[in-house]
Amino acid sequence: MKVLVDCHGADAGVQVAVEGALDALNERKSLSVVLCGKKQDIDKCLEGKTYDKERLEIKEAGEPITNDDAPALAIRRKKDSSMVLGLRALAAGEADAMVSAGNTGSLLVGTQVIVKLIEGATRATLASVVPTIKDTHTIIVDSGANVDCRPEMLEEFAVMGDVYMRNIFGIERPTVGLLSNGAEEEKGTPAIKEAHALLKNGGLNFVGNIEARDVLTGAVDVLVTDGFAGNVAIKACEGMGKAMFVLIKEGIMQGGLKAKIGYLLLKNVFRGVKKRVSSDEVGGGVFLGANKIVIKTHGASNAFSYKKSILNADRLAEKNVVGQIAEGLRKVKE
Amino acid sequence: MKVLVDCHGADAGVQVAVEGALDALNERKSLSVVLCGKKQDIDKCLEGKTYDKERLEIKEAGEPITNDDAPALAIRRKKDSSMVLGLRALAAGEADAMVSAGNTGSLLVGTQVIVKLIEGATRATLASVVPTIKDTHTIIVDSGANVDCRPEMLEEFAVMGDVYMRNIFGIERPTVGLLSNGAEEEKGTPAIKEAHALLKNGGLNFVGNIEARDVLTGAVDVLVTDGFAGNVAIKACEGMGKAMFVLIKEGIMQGGLKAKIGYLLLKNVFRGVKKRVSSDEVGGGVFLGANKIVIKTHGASNAFSYKKSILNADRLAEKNVVGQIAEGLRKVKE
Repeated sequence: MKVLVDCHGADAGVQVAVEGALDALNERKSLSVVLCGKKQDIDKCLEGKTYDKERLEIKEAGEPITNDDAPALAIRRKKDSSMVLGLRALAAGEADAMVSAGNTGSLLVGTQVIVKLIEGATRATLASVVPTIKDTHTIIVDSGANVDCRPEMLEEFAVMGDVYMRNIFGIERPTVGLLSNGAEEEKGTPAIKEAHALLKNGGLNFVGNIEARDVLTGAVDVLVTDGFAGNVAIKACEGMGKAMFVLIKEGIMQGGLKAKIGYLLLKNVFRGVKKRVSSDEVGGGVFLGANKIVIKTHGASNAFSYKKSILNADRLAEKNVVGQIAEGLRKVKE
Repeated sequence: MKVLVDCHGADAGVQVAVEGALDALNERKSLSVVLCGKKQDIDKCLEGKTYDKERLEIKEAGEPITNDDAPALAIRRKKDSSMVLGLRALAAGEADAMVSAGNTGSLLVGTQVIVKLIEGATRATLASVVPTIKDTHTIIVDSGANVDCRPEMLEEFAVMGDVYMRNIFGIERPTVGLLSNGAEEEKGTPAIKEAHALLKNGGLNFVGNIEARDVLTGAVDVLVTDGFAGNVAIKACEGMGKAMFVLIKEGIMQGGLKAKIGYLLLKNVFRGVKKRVSSDEVGGGVFLGANKIVIKTHGASNAFSYKKSILNADRLAEKNVVGQIAEGLRKVKE
């Protein structure tokens, strides 16, 4: 498979994108990459590196889209940006998937407008896979792209999440839950209650409403939510994780020598926990519902997150997740 | 001040309510309580206990409202339940505040219908105070009662939260933030964007949108949100806190003798962190916007949580928070 890499958009600059791409190339011999961005910046990052030149192309681009750009406007105006050129090449079939750390809103608009949606999909959803304390994974659809969702959209997200978990994690019949403010059927906003009814009467393995305290307990394989609540749930977990480490550190600083020795003995445990709850491990959020796989890796990405996202994009393309989603949506609409 | 205690509704039964009330009586000599519930159950819990009988009354009640009851229906049908009798006595001026661990929906409906709202308040909001890692407190309005909120309601919640933080925490000019899926002004659902405009042009110390990762960082004193997102944010934090402890424990179990010794040395630190993030410390959620103070303490309450909630109710009544909120809302509507 061939994966396009938008080399602009990460806080750390072009270098992490290029390094991540080279690491991915070295790890998977069947992979090719197209690095899209300012050629001179990319060339500088490639200097002195060893890699299989047969499997690496560069696509020259102009001024990149930034986080200060208005999402839709940027797609229309910055036609030679790495993001727009990449999405165009993807739409034209020059590659099988794309990875970008750029402006989420622009990437969503660009994916929908340039790569276009699968028949039957109302929107592309940003799907994020989070690790659970059971050592399983839960996919959150939508995790932040579509803030205002009609019940039918939530049902589509559920179908896409179900396809993903079957194909990528090999779960035969994924459990599907709906994020709400209570487990009871009558809890939620009007849209959530309607989505509950749709899912209950649909063909998926729907287990009902899930509270946000169960986002990480592995209660379900697919967690359906609008992008507003999805973003709140994920960011709140992230914030609480950081808060806990801050409080533990404070406690250790105030706890004298005894606590400091305790910390040294538990250093590896803390490191392990940090790694378990890190989003780097799972390889970015995926826009599902479009005609090609587009992965949004976070703005704070390092080379490791890029590598993971690129390998994940390769795998999703190889497993034909797009085709499977099209099939799933077709069945729902019948 | 006199505080009514609904003795039914906690998972642990009548005993924790009665014990909490006695502890509160012992701690604050200016306090009186009215225990509302099945007299025979209450009497059993009082047996052999020492307390100032002058400051304790019992109000006999019949079949209690449970979590299985439909909220509004229960208020209409179970007229001699401890919750309804308590709210009636409160409305009649027989006490200054009330504490209940019962069905949140029923308590919200009952508060609005029986105790009635302050002029200018569209709804009662469930306000929850959470401790932050800066050792300050943030009030979350609404934290789970009103799932579907118009922008004007969110503005009212902001006013109520501002009054609370000024009066109870002595903060001169509390900062107010709006929970959204991004810090930028244009982020959020249509209702959130409209609320943003109202708050920006209002008289409070509004600092803009706040992401859920900042719920616990003390970024603002008052965090405004609808009850759906508020519930998601709080429950996600709760779940992540538990998840972190589970992962740390797992790491220690797998880490051999070294990790186990580390754990023993850090035991007090872990206990301190657990206490810091516990909701028991802050004394329940408060329904603001009603003519009297009503506090919802959680279903899993123990005697300590009841005590904290009763003392908090006493303090809020003493500080005339209701009168201050009425004044605040009057100013906004002018």
